[in-house]
Amino acid sequence: MTAESYPSAMIFLVSTQSHRGRLITFEGLDGCGKSTQLEKLAKALRADGFPITVTREPGGTAMGEKIRNLLLDSATAGLSPLAELALMFASRAQHLKEVVQPALTEGRIVLCDRFTDSTEAYQGGGRKIGIEPVLALHKIVCGNLQPDVTILMDSDVSASVERARRRNVARASDGSREKHDENRFEQESRAFFGRVRQAYLAIAAREPERVSS
Amino acid sequence: MTAESYPSAMIFLVSTQSHRGRLITFEGLDGCGKSTQLEKLAKALRADGFPITVTREPGGTAMGEKIRNLLLDSATAGLSPLAELALMFASRAQHLKEVVQPALTEGRIVLCDRFTDSTEAYQGGGRKIGIEPVLALHKIVCGNLQPDVTILMDSDVSASVERARRRNVARASDGSREKHDENRFEQESRAFFGRVRQAYLAIAAREPERVSS
Repeated sequence: MTAESYPSAMIFLVSTQSHRGRLITFEGLDGCGKSTQLEKLAKALRADGFPITVTREPGGTAMGEKIRNLLLDSATAGLSPLAELALMFASRAQHLKEVVQPALTEGRIVLCDRFTDSTEAYQGGGRKIGIEPVLALHKIVCGNLQPDVTILMDSDVSASVERARRRNVARASDGSREKHDENRFEQESRAFFGRVRQAYLAIAAREPERVSS
Repeated sequence: MTAESYPSAMIFLVSTQSHRGRLITFEGLDGCGKSTQLEKLAKALRADGFPITVTREPGGTAMGEKIRNLLLDSATAGLSPLAELALMFASRAQHLKEVVQPALTEGRIVLCDRFTDSTEAYQGGGRKIGIEPVLALHKIVCGNLQPDVTILMDSDVSASVERARRRNVARASDGSREKHDENRFEQESRAFFGRVRQAYLAIAAREPERVSS
């Protein structure tokens, strides 16, 4: 979807006067353009005077960024898929406590780049762990919290992998970027990203009221 | 228990000729003397020619030691109990894949300083997360793997806290030790360690055939 086509749920979301905040998550393959869309929506909401918190997973906290570095660094070879799964939820637990829940309590609109759907798609689908362990961990760590709206940016696997590769090369030549090159996921195969995409589409089919694709 | 009083299960364990290894875990409060007992048993088994792997949790792998540093460093203030829980199982998942399962497959006797019982006692009891999330995560990460024998070193809470504090002071004055002073747990209250001890005793009461206390 594009910034011009936000769903009716979103229009409802930002036009109501609620004392509880809203959680809007952005999902999709690396390079799908979700970060750009997130920034566009944040800018539009800020211009309209809404209190906005922009954040991301894995990361979003000092501890979470340390975990993110462990997860994304291509030097982290041989990481067990289940260890990866648990690290994702460790980052998420800290992020919820420090950032997301306080912001929601204050009535803010939280725009989050990736959330549990990413874990279901990448670890559940891509790494073949399956859906059930991911949803069980979500229940333990997040309780009943679900995003109010999820923007799923679907994209062609080939194009997405190619965009991510170009972005990665640009970072490497830049030199000013962090040494953690986010390569560990970007080195995965087309088949891996194909499974990730299918898992995303399955989530959208299962929860059409929440997920706009 | 002392090194002189290992249970009959242990005698059976080391006197049988099995092609599958055995997992023996050592549990108890910090400062209870479990590491000393583990080393004594390792020495005795090595002297008898048994193939031994000595390891520990959290840690036991390169990734696990990074996670251990995050967990034990007293600079890690404000860590969410659920993030702590997930980090413990991230370390465990990697440890199982890299160290424990290969060693068991080779028929080795694995002596491990702390395992899931520690998580049930410290995070489930001490941090009041409860037993169910810990056992659910164990099932996801470890499947049906359980220690063949667990040596639980019960100790008085006051004495244990005092021993841990002295050990910590000795480390700080040493200067050669790592900056991660393992202080984060040692700074906890007597009430915390009381809950940890009670959780350990509940495990021993629940699984008397596995746990020797």
